[in-house]
Amino acid sequence: PQILIVIGSKSDEEQVRPCGVVLSDCGISYQARVLSAHRTPQEVTRLAAQAAGKGVRIIIAAAGAAAHLAGVIAAHTDLPVIGIPVESKSLKGLDSLLSTVQMPPGIPVATVAIGPMGAKNAAYLAVRILALSDARLATRLKRLKESMRREILKQKVDI
Amino acid sequence: PQILIVIGSKSDEEQVRPCGVVLSDCGISYQARVLSAHRTPQEVTRLAAQAAGKGVRIIIAAAGAAAHLAGVIAAHTDLPVIGIPVESKSLKGLDSLLSTVQMPPGIPVATVAIGPMGAKNAAYLAVRILALSDARLATRLKRLKESMRREILKQKVDI
Amino acid sequence: PQILIVIGSKSDEEQVRPCGVVLSDCGISYQARVLSAHRTPQEVTRLAAQAAGKGVRIIIAAAGAAAHLAGVIAAHTDLPVIGIPVESKSLKGLDSLLSTVQMPPGIPVATVAIGPMGAKNAAYLAVRILALSDARLATRLKRLKESMRREILKQKVDI
Amino acid sequence: PQILIVIGSKSDEEQVRPCGVVLSDCGISYQARVLSAHRTPQEVTRLAAQAAGKGVRIIIAAAGAAAHLAGVIAAHTDLPVIGIPVESKSLKGLDSLLSTVQMPPGIPVATVAIGPMGAKNAAYLAVRILALSDARLATRLKRLKESMRREILKQKVDI
Amino acid sequence: PQILIVIGSKSDEEQVRPCGVVLSDCGISYQARVLSAHRTPQEVTRLAAQAAGKGVRIIIAAAGAAAHLAGVIAAHTDLPVIGIPVESKSLKGLDSLLSTVQMPPGIPVATVAIGPMGAKNAAYLAVRILALSDARLATRLKRLKESMRREILKQKVDI
Amino acid sequence: PQILIVIGSKSDEEQVRPCGVVLSDCGISYQARVLSAHRTPQEVTRLAAQAAGKGVRIIIAAAGAAAHLAGVIAAHTDLPVIGIPVESKSLKGLDSLLSTVQMPPGIPVATVAIGPMGAKNAAYLAVRILALSDARLATRLKRLKESMRREILKQKVDI
Amino acid sequence: PQILIVIGSKSDEEQVRPCGVVLSDCGISYQARVLSAHRTPQEVTRLAAQAAGKGVRIIIAAAGAAAHLAGVIAAHTDLPVIGIPVESKSLKGLDSLLSTVQMPPGIPVATVAIGPMGAKNAAYLAVRILALSDARLATRLKRLKESMRREILKQKVDI
Amino acid sequence: PQILIVIGSKSDEEQVRPCGVVLSDCGISYQARVLSAHRTPQEVTRLAAQAAGKGVRIIIAAAGAAAHLAGVIAAHTDLPVIGIPVESKSLKGLDSLLSTVQMPPGIPVATVAIGPMGAKNAAYLAVRILALSDARLATRLKRLKESMRREILKQKVDI
Repeated sequence: PQILIVIGSKSDEEQVRPCGVVLSDCGISYQARVLSAHRTPQEVTRLAAQAAGKGVRIIIAAAGAAAHLAGVIAAHTDLPVIGIPVESKSLKGLDSLLSTVQMPPGIPVATVAIGPMGAKNAAYLAVRILALSDARLATRLKRLKESMRREILKQKVDI
Repeated sequence: PQILIVIGSKSDEEQVRPCGVVLSDCGISYQARVLSAHRTPQEVTRLAAQAAGKGVRIIIAAAGAAAHLAGVIAAHTDLPVIGIPVESKSLKGLDSLLSTVQMPPGIPVATVAIGPMGAKNAAYLAVRILALSDARLATRLKRLKESMRREILKQKVDI
Repeated sequence: PQILIVIGSKSDEEQVRPCGVVLSDCGISYQARVLSAHRTPQEVTRLAAQAAGKGVRIIIAAAGAAAHLAGVIAAHTDLPVIGIPVESKSLKGLDSLLSTVQMPPGIPVATVAIGPMGAKNAAYLAVRILALSDARLATRLKRLKESMRREILKQKVDI
Repeated sequence: PQILIVIGSKSDEEQVRPCGVVLSDCGISYQARVLSAHRTPQEVTRLAAQAAGKGVRIIIAAAGAAAHLAGVIAAHTDLPVIGIPVESKSLKGLDSLLSTVQMPPGIPVATVAIGPMGAKNAAYLAVRILALSDARLATRLKRLKESMRREILKQKVDI
Repeated sequence: PQILIVIGSKSDEEQVRPCGVVLSDCGISYQARVLSAHRTPQEVTRLAAQAAGKGVRIIIAAAGAAAHLAGVIAAHTDLPVIGIPVESKSLKGLDSLLSTVQMPPGIPVATVAIGPMGAKNAAYLAVRILALSDARLATRLKRLKESMRREILKQKVDI
Repeated sequence: PQILIVIGSKSDEEQVRPCGVVLSDCGISYQARVLSAHRTPQEVTRLAAQAAGKGVRIIIAAAGAAAHLAGVIAAHTDLPVIGIPVESKSLKGLDSLLSTVQMPPGIPVATVAIGPMGAKNAAYLAVRILALSDARLATRLKRLKESMRREILKQKVDI
Repeated sequence: PQILIVIGSKSDEEQVRPCGVVLSDCGISYQARVLSAHRTPQEVTRLAAQAAGKGVRIIIAAAGAAAHLAGVIAAHTDLPVIGIPVESKSLKGLDSLLSTVQMPPGIPVATVAIGPMGAKNAAYLAVRILALSDARLATRLKRLKESMRREILKQKVDI
Repeated sequence: PQILIVIGSKSDEEQVRPCGVVLSDCGISYQARVLSAHRTPQEVTRLAAQAAGKGVRIIIAAAGAAAHLAGVIAAHTDLPVIGIPVESKSLKGLDSLLSTVQMPPGIPVATVAIGPMGAKNAAYLAVRILALSDARLATRLKRLKESMRREILKQKVDI
């Protein structure tokens, strides 16, 4: 797969699903896994370290609360890592966002918005990156943006 | 240049400088501009729209407070856009961060940490992306990470 | 129309509706559109730039999360722009508020409260502005305030 | 005077000064007063109630912490009221912002950014409103925006 | 009545009801009114100014969002004023709390917790104040505290 | 003394001093102590429990961070307790404020603003309470408010 | 019992239950009580002071809002005290968290996450501490972690 | 050493120093290291995994911003891990606190206050844990608390 999606808990699945939908729409191969930075640390480390060697080009990691998953993965790979802060129960993803985005110098996580909105954008960001070296995908992206544009333009408002 | 850096105000320069340092260290060509999403909107739009055609591969945008710069640029290009939330005076960059990261579905901004720490990571993120198709840069990145590692390992603590 | 209402997403419609109700009550002509600062940037720019020429006097823009809509419009027009921060899902409009109100010097957005409460006040603010040069509207506003006052005064409390 | 500026405390003067500078630049007559919503309530009420009769067209109110000044003024006048949330000592203006912007339906305060940045924008917002019925001022505003634009475009970045 | 309760909106009634229950339990006479600091400013001012003369000893004010009610009342009376920050829809009472508690020097509002919990405590605080010069009430308060204590001590936990 | 002031740490002294100044101005006797809810719990408990018996009428407690001092005192006395949230180093008093104001039903703390502004208001609140049964103090308070009013009215603004 | 669990209110029971489940799973004896730092202060003090003498080794305290319970207990015992910030109604546990964790130097509370997630971790933290001197428990903990690990590894994702 | 202190960056040293002072005062052996969860991940993992085998009984980890250090360590050891949220530059440690305390179920971090205050308490918490099986240390702790108590009791206030 070109993209590896890792979610920190089975309960994050619903919020992350839009990410897969966009990737599928763009014909990008991806694989999704549940792995916890804290409860399966060895597996996370290994997966991150081996990803590049297996042809993965971007890793997308989604986690909530003290959301270390994306950061831990970024520490073990040189691939671009995109972090989705999952909306947490009490603090509504503010904790997830700060834990994901405030990375120390040297190990960046490309952070997107909290929750499903961010999950969708993680996919779009991955597409933009892959499209740098894939003209067909660049065209596909242009078309997607155009269709979003049209969809908005035909909406009627009743205010 | 491979990278275009846009800052929203001359006063953001100090916080964004570490970004240029890392890019230079990696031998990546870049160009930096001051352009405001609100006070020079046409210039921002044009710059964003023409960047890909001029060979730019990634745009890094830094702005503070109601930080729209990265989002506006992302709306006018299909290139990956990295957003640096500049530390603002009153709210210390919380406003900048939320304005940069909470993008609506379809138009992602790859957001990094607030302030100079984020500026440095914007460069590292760009390097990771460019290294996907540049083996020499991938090697350079590995070496940089190794030297960071060594620098930390040789530090003595006096606690 | 004297007033142009732009909402960033069809899903904001419900929160913004009270704005239309007040404008109608005051006999002010308005037109409402869905346009996204990020997904239909050209249309937003054009609408903003042409509004004054078409007789529009005030633009009201409502958006959520990284709410750039009002700011982008304000950058492309010299008309007064009123921003309604739509209540967002995770951060409850705190992101929308900061993205709308913290505008850089030179390009102001007259920001009102988060959500439907703010939508109503966007209309009242527009009425106050238009009433500066419309004595009939000033009278209408006085009457509206008087009827609000009476409605409150006749409420019985059961505590 | 066309504009009345009220500040809640002598100590807010420094933050609000940019407001006067912009108004002067635009040739708009204004008068500034220190009046506290809580310590001089009668004077605030009277000033607000009489402003329209004396030819004032817009009231700008700046206050910090539990910043009620703009709201109290808006309750006693039908003129447009612009609120500047002054940066407070402990909470850095977050309290001022929420107290100013979260007004109940019916009594709007057109809120701008926290601190001097907002003070400047309060003036620009007033200019936009007055320019609706003053072609000369509209031209003056266009020129101001153009000069801001040029100032930004000629800035060199050293990154 | 010894206590005057003012709520800023009929919709705050539910949250404030526990206040009345405690006062009734203590045999303290009170009267409750809906009055808005912004929509019925004259009535609020008059009520506050006349309260002491009518034998009122404490005023309890409850309001949400830009919660100015308690502060405005405190500006027009020398009686102790207790403020209840009502839980607001978007920001969950954080705006109400800051608008109520962050009063400028000279005009204090005795602020209690957000929502019904605070409403109950507003009553208990009033009782503590009145009990300073009412030995019978002091005894009543002691008994109430003792019964709260017993109620807690007899609770069984199933953990 | 009529008033007992307890501060949680010697380092809070500077922020609380304005409280003593106002009380002195009003001719109210008070005594100030450093006592920590956590490091001298027995002494706090004893002081609170014995205060009423020694003629104290109001206790003012100032503490920062996890500011439990006012709450603990309120648990051990039936006197009115006023809480001053001291501005803390990292979170600027937001932690102190929430720890002081969000008291559970039954045990109220009359909370004032963060820092020196609140310290001053703690005194004014105490004066309002004592003035309920002290006509001379009521007159003194009226005069103080009048002098505050005059001081504001004679201020010149240079904006 | 080895562990004493104290909750500040019967209504916290649901959030704290997972704590008991983990302790039971590990075969650790515990006892749970409802006691309020503010409404039953003597009982809390006594319980805390006598716990060590009765063989208790760790106290776990859960409370919401101005959550003083863990801190008060820590002031009256030298045993390790673990604090669970209960999710509060309005502020979602941010108040509980800050009131629990921001303890002054000398009297620590080992704070875990907000709500049920934290309740579970309070138990795991207690187990880690007890396992320092209980080899059988150390083995039990290793097995528990291994079973968590397996449970995660066998989850299938449908994204 | 009985205690291992790990700090995420040399720049955290100053904030963490009070931790060492308390441990020294108590005669507890400790060793301090700089290791970054992200820049030296293997070393962190190895250190955590081997700590128990080398006789370490408690690990104290201090880090700022996206503070993953304590969590990563807790994932690789069964020893109690105490987390000190270092005060970060922009968000003043709110990010550090949430990243440290909001750990997922199963892998607890015993979190203390932000900054030097927390560093001191990390040591005191460690002492409480070690004192469970070290009567001499328990006595030492009692004496320390008594001397803190006396120090407070002899402070004079000048308010």
